[in-house]
Amino acid sequence: INQMKSYREALSLIRLIPDFPKPGILFQDITPVLADGQALRSVVDELALRATDIDVVAGVEARGFILGAAIAHQLHVGFIPIRKSGKLPFDSISKTYGLEYGESTLEMHQDCLKEGARVFLIDDILATGGTLIASIQLIEELGGLVTDIGLLTEIPGLNGYEVIAEQYPTIRLHLLNR
Amino acid sequence: INQMKSYREALSLIRLIPDFPKPGILFQDITPVLADGQALRSVVDELALRATDIDVVAGVEARGFILGAAIAHQLHVGFIPIRKSGKLPFDSISKTYGLEYGESTLEMHQDCLKEGARVFLIDDILATGGTLIASIQLIEELGGLVTDIGLLTEIPGLNGYEVIAEQYPTIRLHLLNR
Repeated sequence: INQMKSYREALSLIRLIPDFPKPGILFQDITPVLADGQALRSVVDELALRATDIDVVAGVEARGFILGAAIAHQLHVGFIPIRKSGKLPFDSISKTYGLEYGESTLEMHQDCLKEGARVFLIDDILATGGTLIASIQLIEELGGLVTDIGLLTEIPGLNGYEVIAEQYPTIRLHLLNR
Repeated sequence: INQMKSYREALSLIRLIPDFPKPGILFQDITPVLADGQALRSVVDELALRATDIDVVAGVEARGFILGAAIAHQLHVGFIPIRKSGKLPFDSISKTYGLEYGESTLEMHQDCLKEGARVFLIDDILATGGTLIASIQLIEELGGLVTDIGLLTEIPGLNGYEVIAEQYPTIRLHLLNR
């Protein structure tokens, strides 16, 4: 605890993996950040600090669960999982969308948000923004309001930040590596 | 924060869902526990309190990520994801095992643990114990030592607790609903 890593030092632990999950994709592996206790704390605390006046944290499966749950715990609020298709046991709504490799479906429980809940949406890496937009649409359909989005980093050249900023100008976008 | 839920009150929020994911299975849905900020904190804090002298938390995909990451954050240690097949980008080891419905493969990065690391293994629900045993085997293969296992609850009648206790008598098993 004496020698805390800054969140920028923490982000420098991200490891680049060529051709995963498909040839031509340069994957950003955040597991070295998570595995380092100081690094994990610094990115979680930095994102938690930046959120103001939120009621609940929502995290996108699966790496968004890791960051999102720790942030929710830090902020003394609840955590809502946004899950891949077929994983949620109760009545759910779903949204299918394209991503940089293939297609995906996300789901949320119908009863998981209180009307008007202010949601801090968490994922690890911003690509095209498709995952975040599907998540925002699900949250809004359930009566929630995404006030803040938190992410560690982005894939360069896909313009996800600009897409989200333009389409949702009132959402505060906390992208730690910017 | 004034009216903290006890962890036993938190566990009472678990919702029973019949016939999920297959007919005849009575699924224990922990999402209402996660969604309640006081309940999430109470189960995370209770599990974190019970772990002594651990170096790192490992969580099983996907609900073990949620609890495990919050516990790691609380304990100021790192978090290691134990993932389903094909999700980890770097060199990994894997273990295939049977579970109460079907079969599954778990993987861990080859370089994720320091030799002799004392690991707090986290999952949400104990069934037959197959997932935990596969996880323990992976951790031991990587040179780690599972000293503690933390879980919220168990599926009655499958004897998972007894199986783990008999096969790994030195591991402290923290099953919150016992």
